[in-house]
Amino acid sequence: MAKDKVNSEIKHITFIGSGNVASAMAEEFFKKGLIITQVFSRNLSQANLLAEKVNSTGINNYSQLKETDLFIVAVSDDAISTVFSELKSSTPVVHTSGNTALQERYQNTESGVFYPLQTFSKGSGTNWSEVPICIEAANEDLLQKLHLLGELLSENVKTITSAERAIIHAAAVLACNFTNHLGALTQEVLEDHNLSLDLLNPLIQKTFRNITSGKAKEKQTGPAVREDYGTIDSHMKILEDKPEIKALYLALSKHIIAYHHGQ
Amino acid sequence: MAKDKVNSEIKHITFIGSGNVASAMAEEFFKKGLIITQVFSRNLSQANLLAEKVNSTGINNYSQLKETDLFIVAVSDDAISTVFSELKSSTPVVHTSGNTALQERYQNTESGVFYPLQTFSKGSGTNWSEVPICIEAANEDLLQKLHLLGELLSENVKTITSAERAIIHAAAVLACNFTNHLGALTQEVLEDHNLSLDLLNPLIQKTFRNITSGKAKEKQTGPAVREDYGTIDSHMKILEDKPEIKALYLALSKHIIAYHHGQ
Repeated sequence: MAKDKVNSEIKHITFIGSGNVASAMAEEFFKKGLIITQVFSRNLSQANLLAEKVNSTGINNYSQLKETDLFIVAVSDDAISTVFSELKSSTPVVHTSGNTALQERYQNTESGVFYPLQTFSKGSGTNWSEVPICIEAANEDLLQKLHLLGELLSENVKTITSAERAIIHAAAVLACNFTNHLGALTQEVLEDHNLSLDLLNPLIQKTFRNITSGKAKEKQTGPAVREDYGTIDSHMKILEDKPEIKALYLALSKHIIAYHHGQ
Repeated sequence: MAKDKVNSEIKHITFIGSGNVASAMAEEFFKKGLIITQVFSRNLSQANLLAEKVNSTGINNYSQLKETDLFIVAVSDDAISTVFSELKSSTPVVHTSGNTALQERYQNTESGVFYPLQTFSKGSGTNWSEVPICIEAANEDLLQKLHLLGELLSENVKTITSAERAIIHAAAVLACNFTNHLGALTQEVLEDHNLSLDLLNPLIQKTFRNITSGKAKEKQTGPAVREDYGTIDSHMKILEDKPEIKALYLALSKHIIAYHHGQ
């Protein structure tokens, strides 16, 4: 039984893709002692760049792929099914996408999902121990292997269906991508007037505490929820030379008013 | 000199207004040993509610106002100038608004601004020591008094002009009010599908770290910045029964695409 468990562990991984997600994950698995068999990218120098960091070999041709314990496909969503169809070996294969359903393999059912629910950008570190890893697999055996693999990275490994994962991914875009964009706009407005972002940090931190602890709707403040059109007008004037930010400010304010006070 | 300094300190304060800002500030000043002379609100029971918490007296008639060291006017922006014109005594008076310019008093120049750059909602605590207090005054003497008063609450008291404060306030709406609204929408989407927000907390925390440390624009991830229209379409389908959230998702995605890739 113990021997079975050891045998069922994934110890060798090949990454298909070398972008932000593949890099963050490959580097962490390497740090945890796993062997990165190969790194595939259509762009060989990109493949080599990541391969060097994880003591691996970069390749750019599917025919060069060796057998390994797992292929992790970390490519753009629209490339996933093409890549899956290129992988002819019997090695199990997972993708890392939040939005793409479980892909049934052509030859066998050794396919799954290994989705780290986090934002990965160049130059920002990741505290892997708290990153939820959402897993799914076409069979129980692979699911168990993925669970063990996920636990190497994180204390929070969860089995999530494709349908649930798609909803979580949409929610993640609302909570992360759009918020980051608002942060970028905020930084632009302040920089244009030589004002420091530091001044806003306590506010930003409290906003995040409000969102992660309790009902954000009940904590809404600001001119829109108060229907304070005078302040909204003043802000329109301040943003006069930023027509796109101004338009977005107005759209969001209208949305808040409708959300809290009806149409 | 030392005696002058003692005399110049503000020790007795009356609050005009009893909403979130007045309550948070009055309670903190009371905790720090100041005397809250009176609490004024048009709604007497609201005035009494706050007054009880800070060992003070609630009133709802301007003729009942006693002399004190400072009136703090924490009312809605559009009511500020009316309230200022009602205050006939020689007591200095400040407002707490981010958006309203310094108000010149009718009888004297003892007027100023005492703006705490933070979001205050019922049931969420405030770590006052880190809240930036933006002060402004019609004369140097009052400015100095407000500085000492601010330092009772916070380690971060800054003299900020009306023009700068208005820009900071607009930026704060982008960084806080809109972000909180996105948080509320995220919670709604997850709750509708019985999914826990806990799963998103590490993502939300990293997003906030990204915004407060470095260029958020360079950390942008997600389907919009990748121009991944397939994923955007999937999310549109997930949000099909939430037409308003769907419309906002689309508006924000278009904004990100234009911001990163041009029109």
